[in-house]
Amino acid sequence: MSRTKTKSVEPDSYPRRIFVADLGGTHLRCGVVDQAGKIHFHAKQHRPVAESAQDIVDALVAAARACDRQNTAAGYSIEAISVVVAGTVNVAAGSIVKAPNLPFLSGFDLAGALSRALNLPAILENDANAAAVGEMWLGAARGRCTFVCVTLGTGVGGGIILDGKLWHGVNDSAAEVGHMCVDPFGGVACTCGSRGCLEVYASATAIVRMAREAKPRHPSSRLQIDDELTSENIYQAGVEGDELALEVFRRMGVYLGIGLANLINILNPEMLVIGGGVVNGWDLFEKHMKHEVVERAFPLLADLVTIVPAECGDDAGLLGAARLAFDRDLKN
Amino acid sequence: MSRTKTKSVEPDSYPRRIFVADLGGTHLRCGVVDQAGKIHFHAKQHRPVAESAQDIVDALVAAARACDRQNTAAGYSIEAISVVVAGTVNVAAGSIVKAPNLPFLSGFDLAGALSRALNLPAILENDANAAAVGEMWLGAARGRCTFVCVTLGTGVGGGIILDGKLWHGVNDSAAEVGHMCVDPFGGVACTCGSRGCLEVYASATAIVRMAREAKPRHPSSRLQIDDELTSENIYQAGVEGDELALEVFRRMGVYLGIGLANLINILNPEMLVIGGGVVNGWDLFEKHMKHEVVERAFPLLADLVTIVPAECGDDAGLLGAARLAFDRDLKN
Repeated sequence: MSRTKTKSVEPDSYPRRIFVADLGGTHLRCGVVDQAGKIHFHAKQHRPVAESAQDIVDALVAAARACDRQNTAAGYSIEAISVVVAGTVNVAAGSIVKAPNLPFLSGFDLAGALSRALNLPAILENDANAAAVGEMWLGAARGRCTFVCVTLGTGVGGGIILDGKLWHGVNDSAAEVGHMCVDPFGGVACTCGSRGCLEVYASATAIVRMAREAKPRHPSSRLQIDDELTSENIYQAGVEGDELALEVFRRMGVYLGIGLANLINILNPEMLVIGGGVVNGWDLFEKHMKHEVVERAFPLLADLVTIVPAECGDDAGLLGAARLAFDRDLKN
Repeated sequence: MSRTKTKSVEPDSYPRRIFVADLGGTHLRCGVVDQAGKIHFHAKQHRPVAESAQDIVDALVAAARACDRQNTAAGYSIEAISVVVAGTVNVAAGSIVKAPNLPFLSGFDLAGALSRALNLPAILENDANAAAVGEMWLGAARGRCTFVCVTLGTGVGGGIILDGKLWHGVNDSAAEVGHMCVDPFGGVACTCGSRGCLEVYASATAIVRMAREAKPRHPSSRLQIDDELTSENIYQAGVEGDELALEVFRRMGVYLGIGLANLINILNPEMLVIGGGVVNGWDLFEKHMKHEVVERAFPLLADLVTIVPAECGDDAGLLGAARLAFDRDLKN
């Protein structure tokens, strides 16, 4: 290829770009991602106050138009829209099956509505699935083909990558690792209707609940004031040696380790990636988590698996959303 | 195609045939399987008394030659050898990684040794994986693409089929569903080194142990004599209303249901197939198993999954072994 010719299609100068949005339980994050994985015009806002599916569509359309204006001013165009949500989606239909935080979205064709409003192809994915793809593209699982990404946030989500591809299951509902049972008898009740799910021990919500429960056993803990109980504050107290906080992260690590051992025994992955806000407490729970994995996973498998913290942080979902859109090579 | 021409390559007259063997913890089963899945010259013997890998090779070679003689007399030839074992195998290498019942086989290139001795291509697979393939070919999962086959025998094994293919994991060690933890705290110790594994509640061995443990609570049970404690006898007592036996199958069903709910939440399969000898107790444990699944699996997923008993019985592994060999289209 001649130098002149190469210059005219120079990939770094005219990269393909996707508008991405991550509609979570608390926040709406959005931006434009190019083929190198750079996020442009990154914005984070509280989840829009919404009473109907149209309110959500309007908020996403406004966010996309704001990004598009900046993107156009910079000399680029957006080729597709990729949205990830906390909930169950029908990937092929682009519709939401169930979004616990936004019940009025159940059954709504969100991808279709966005596509019509913005005249661009649009796709939809579960946020934890997208996070796994993001970590494979640019995070802790770069170069890995078979791993599970466990996201410890307000709830606990998961994404399973097998031979380089997202495993969706027969109803796009696989990888509900937060609802794996890790304490069947006498376990804490979960919003899903079961008891003893991983989510009630390893989410940010669970960290706060377990700290509240442990207070009577630790009267001298600095975490006696309810207002101070956030998973971040509990972690900080733990770093400074607070016994209550250390007990909470020990328990959380034990339960997480039980869940990871199950994933290892069932799927035999090469890696487990732990993401979400709670992973910031890694140095407090790592030891307990790994101890359980060694105790409980099949020795042959436990020896070979690597367990690492995620690297893309809050951006994993946005990056995964973009990668999925690039891979589908969408046309309107 | 002309009628004459068709006749000369009539597939039913000259079907391709595989020598298959299932080297289990207690028995060695073997036979010749044709492309329609018919097993010819079916033989079952006690596992050969063996002190070395060569003893096992000799026993398998003798069995293969005996089958081959009958097969040749009937006018057919064998195109390949397919052996399944209770243990971890390296599928690509055709070697055994670890076979708990035959420790001297660890690291042994069994497929290579058989291939050299019989001058035919040979492959090796885990027995529970092969059983899943057998059930997909000719059993309860005919026409299904994504399911888990759980084999309740002396131990508990599993085979995971995703989009029509056996999921092996990165070290051919996936689907160790018997070592999924279903009672992490205070659970019974397992031979794998962990506690509370599904295997210690849902295997034939576990049925007998749980019956022994329950005896003091049921002094009037007809199962007070230790010699009578086999999973089959316990089942028979349960059918006749024996309270001890009913308690054992209730417990077994509860634990199995917890394990199945985890598989559903992680993999979102369309079907779960329950095989192995213990499945004969289906009518005693089905209700308890399904109750736990409904209580614990994500409702969306539990509604859509079908849980059925296996249909190939003891032949599932042999049939799967043959199907795997046909699919690989082996050449020496």
